[in-house]
Amino acid sequence: MPAIPDSHRDLLDAQVATLATIGPDARPQLTALWFLAEGDTVRLSLNTTRQKVHNLRANSAATLFILDLANPYRYLEIRGDAHLEPDPDLAFADRVGAKYGADLRQMDRPGESRVVVTIEPNRIHAVDMGA
Amino acid sequence: MPAIPDSHRDLLDAQVATLATIGPDARPQLTALWFLAEGDTVRLSLNTTRQKVHNLRANSAATLFILDLANPYRYLEIRGDAHLEPDPDLAFADRVGAKYGADLRQMDRPGESRVVVTIEPNRIHAVDMGA
Repeated sequence: MPAIPDSHRDLLDAQVATLATIGPDARPQLTALWFLAEGDTVRLSLNTTRQKVHNLRANSAATLFILDLANPYRYLEIRGDAHLEPDPDLAFADRVGAKYGADLRQMDRPGESRVVVTIEPNRIHAVDMGA
Repeated sequence: MPAIPDSHRDLLDAQVATLATIGPDARPQLTALWFLAEGDTVRLSLNTTRQKVHNLRANSAATLFILDLANPYRYLEIRGDAHLEPDPDLAFADRVGAKYGADLRQMDRPGESRVVVTIEPNRIHAVDMGA
């Protein structure tokens, strides 16, 4: 598995990441979202009603992009496959919520569910173009 | 053509955008780059040796994502097709350089060339998730 270099490991603590999936129109769909890094593994908590979840179920190709907001010429690009698992008791959603000081349960409507999305890296680019 | 709403038009003056193309491995490839907006039209100046140019020649699907660095819960996503034109005298590269106070000619090696990439929007998402 490709590793995240030490030079860019701080970006795993960033506030948001950008997730790219491939939509039904075969175009990249990009959204900003919360994420949780545990070691080198990056995971997301996604409401299953979202288009990006539909996209990932149809095509697991997923690229996570973390931009250094203080120096947007520096970023981490993780290209990989998304592995989806149910989160029936919202245990993982609560861990993401703990990172952000938020309650993800309050963001969902009654009856909605969440999945844990693990990005399994295929290729990692750590870029610093200077400023 | 879909329009960029007034609420997000300021992002057209942002420092960098993220471009997503589809790579030969069928995964989204994302890079941060300079861009120039003239009216609602967003254009890029790209060195033709770059992988993203190869990607766009093979598949014109291109999504440009502009994150508000001061509030990364706010962003503009422009999904569209990339239209590539030669820039033999680097007239457009010089316009991008003027925006950034940089000389793009000095960024290329002898013999390299550039294209003007115009993003023709198919769908625009202007998102503000609050903070």
